[in-house]
Amino acid sequence: MRSYKSLTREELVALHEELQAAYVDAKGKGLSLNMARGKPSKEQLELTMGMLDCLDGKSSLITESGIDTRNYGELTGIPEAKKLMADMMGTSVDNTIVFGNASLPIMYDTVSRSMSFGVCGSTPWCKLDKVKFLCPAPGYDRHFAITELFGIEMITVPMGEDGPDMDMVKEYVENDASVKGIWCVPKYTNPMGISYSDDTVRAFAALNPAAEDFRIYWDNAYIIHDLYEDKKDELLDIISECEKAGKPDMVFEFCSTSKISFAGAGIAAMAASPANIQWVKKSMTIQTIGYDKVNQLRHVRFFKDINGIKEHMKKHAAILRPKFEAVLECFDRELEGLDIAHWTRPNGGYFISFFAMEGCAREIVAKCKEAGVVLTGAGATYPYGKDPQDSNIRIAPSFPTAEEMKQAAEVFALCVKLVTVEKLLEA
Amino acid sequence: MRSYKSLTREELVALHEELQAAYVDAKGKGLSLNMARGKPSKEQLELTMGMLDCLDGKSSLITESGIDTRNYGELTGIPEAKKLMADMMGTSVDNTIVFGNASLPIMYDTVSRSMSFGVCGSTPWCKLDKVKFLCPAPGYDRHFAITELFGIEMITVPMGEDGPDMDMVKEYVENDASVKGIWCVPKYTNPMGISYSDDTVRAFAALNPAAEDFRIYWDNAYIIHDLYEDKKDELLDIISECEKAGKPDMVFEFCSTSKISFAGAGIAAMAASPANIQWVKKSMTIQTIGYDKVNQLRHVRFFKDINGIKEHMKKHAAILRPKFEAVLECFDRELEGLDIAHWTRPNGGYFISFFAMEGCAREIVAKCKEAGVVLTGAGATYPYGKDPQDSNIRIAPSFPTAEEMKQAAEVFALCVKLVTVEKLLEA
Repeated sequence: MRSYKSLTREELVALHEELQAAYVDAKGKGLSLNMARGKPSKEQLELTMGMLDCLDGKSSLITESGIDTRNYGELTGIPEAKKLMADMMGTSVDNTIVFGNASLPIMYDTVSRSMSFGVCGSTPWCKLDKVKFLCPAPGYDRHFAITELFGIEMITVPMGEDGPDMDMVKEYVENDASVKGIWCVPKYTNPMGISYSDDTVRAFAALNPAAEDFRIYWDNAYIIHDLYEDKKDELLDIISECEKAGKPDMVFEFCSTSKISFAGAGIAAMAASPANIQWVKKSMTIQTIGYDKVNQLRHVRFFKDINGIKEHMKKHAAILRPKFEAVLECFDRELEGLDIAHWTRPNGGYFISFFAMEGCAREIVAKCKEAGVVLTGAGATYPYGKDPQDSNIRIAPSFPTAEEMKQAAEVFALCVKLVTVEKLLEA
Repeated sequence: MRSYKSLTREELVALHEELQAAYVDAKGKGLSLNMARGKPSKEQLELTMGMLDCLDGKSSLITESGIDTRNYGELTGIPEAKKLMADMMGTSVDNTIVFGNASLPIMYDTVSRSMSFGVCGSTPWCKLDKVKFLCPAPGYDRHFAITELFGIEMITVPMGEDGPDMDMVKEYVENDASVKGIWCVPKYTNPMGISYSDDTVRAFAALNPAAEDFRIYWDNAYIIHDLYEDKKDELLDIISECEKAGKPDMVFEFCSTSKISFAGAGIAAMAASPANIQWVKKSMTIQTIGYDKVNQLRHVRFFKDINGIKEHMKKHAAILRPKFEAVLECFDRELEGLDIAHWTRPNGGYFISFFAMEGCAREIVAKCKEAGVVLTGAGATYPYGKDPQDSNIRIAPSFPTAEEMKQAAEVFALCVKLVTVEKLLEA
């Protein structure tokens, strides 16, 4: 295919007419497809239905260690659930607390706790004039929403193929004591789909923060969410890397079963050093008597152990893979060689990240919507919802069927072409 | 029986010897009974086991309105669960949000939200020099722990037979703009077991707070927890009373099924005016994508409606009643007429409140513990854990069996007599 940038004005005008006609056609199909959020499909949710048979009216709801999961207590979770989540994160049970149905509230609470009480004895952030977070972007909009809500200044750090720009991270973290945290999705990152390299993880562990209460928010949401058996990203364990580097307290790790069991009714966990865990427990014991242990037990009985989860993830992969491939196949066919966009080819996770020509993302998303294909809002992947290049679009292929995904990708590719040609004609 | 206060020194010495011998005997029995917390017994938890049969691997987990409870979303809860909890509180669905597995975290979050963001647009409490809460006492230790954690100054308000001393409440609330809240357990109050009279509720609604962000924290934990069919306390609905008084925004109401279904795995709710609900949702939508809707559905399928809950509560009452009666029967037999203590006779809830002779509570609790009977720490029912009279002891009869409760009450009554006689001998 010929690069759009090599086309003459006349060729562009003719192409625009053709694309516009195709777009009118597409709109006429009355599509209604949603690729806005990383939501599991119905088919994926069905995979976990057996979990509801694990506990019934005749089951014992007592754990091996004698805890009645139906009653109050066990602040940090039942031992079996802690083991399951610790194994998933590749860390120890002592480093792990199991919480409620999702990890987002744990992250919110961790920021909130730091605001009100300070981190491990340091000044509460609400008493400081300025608190800043580094935000590798494109990144996860719900992370940015938490820091924005608390009035924390967000600094965009560019994401590369191996993770965030670590020179910039180091520069900020080591010289600005008002930088208190950094948001990371280290594996199959939202929305890039890439994973942090070993060098990146080691560069994190090697940081010498200016602020003693600086913490890495390591949201390992896709830790075990591979699409392929033969192409799996590997991620170093940040907790042991930080330990080795003599900075055991520098990281909070988060994960959940939201995209393993049920998205609304999973279990979630945090892992951190003993000092950090102690700090969390200090206010957590006032906040709650304990999270839902029956649901923790349900997960333990269904998955049994980490191998059970791994087997289960293969079933998710089998459902997700064709959807990712439908998108990539369409992009390759329709957009490759046009020199107007590039996109990621993730080995796991929930997203493909698409980079349109500068200044086109917002218009592409709008045009898609008009044709019945809803995408995550352009800009959502940047702090304050502002993509300086207006280029990145997050594509979430999980919820529609593979067939719908194919249709949606066609509409998307068409809109990319149409908007880009219009942009080139304007220039 | 003769009042201890009318006994001569010689009679007291003889009595002491006798009680001391009985105490040595009691210790010899090697009891191990726990009346420290309002925990449901195993027998009560069994009542809800049928709930686990309501959803199995073949069930539809879709609500009537088409919500897939397994997936993300529905921030404020599924409509059916909102209806159930709204009916329990006697308020409207529009006023209601259903949260996670317990109400304590909702209360904590509400205080936390007020600290960080301010209430409905007013100054965040963390920016104020001083924030105060009124604490009717004896009251619930976990309430006091929340305000203490956030550095909120707690002012003790004496509890009477009809509720808190409303003259004192009015005096503080209407003249001190730093008073931002009051902790209330209005029905079968923890630990008194009494309920607020209509006059008390109306006096609350009639308050004209000096602070626009003053809120009544109405923890309706025992709203439907009657012990007797023919002796039920009735409580006015605070939300409609506040509406009538032209102050719809003055109250946050909380409740849960912790002592209805499973103590660790129930569902919990908050009710408040539209303006308050809007305020909660503003940060809640950043904090979480939604709570566990599968467990909400499980509750709806099991109880069906408010009548289902009412029928279920009769079964709880049948289990709890003999335990309360065992305690009261023992106290009547052993302590009535001695003029050294008084206690409450609740029609519901989870506690009997015992008032020993001034300066005796701590020692009674210690002596009981030595004899294998663990009680809530003396003082726990007051802000900062300090009962100025060292008199109040909370008795939680729910967890032991009725037979154990009888034994525990005997030990308790013995310790009351022994400690009181020692105190009288010291005088």
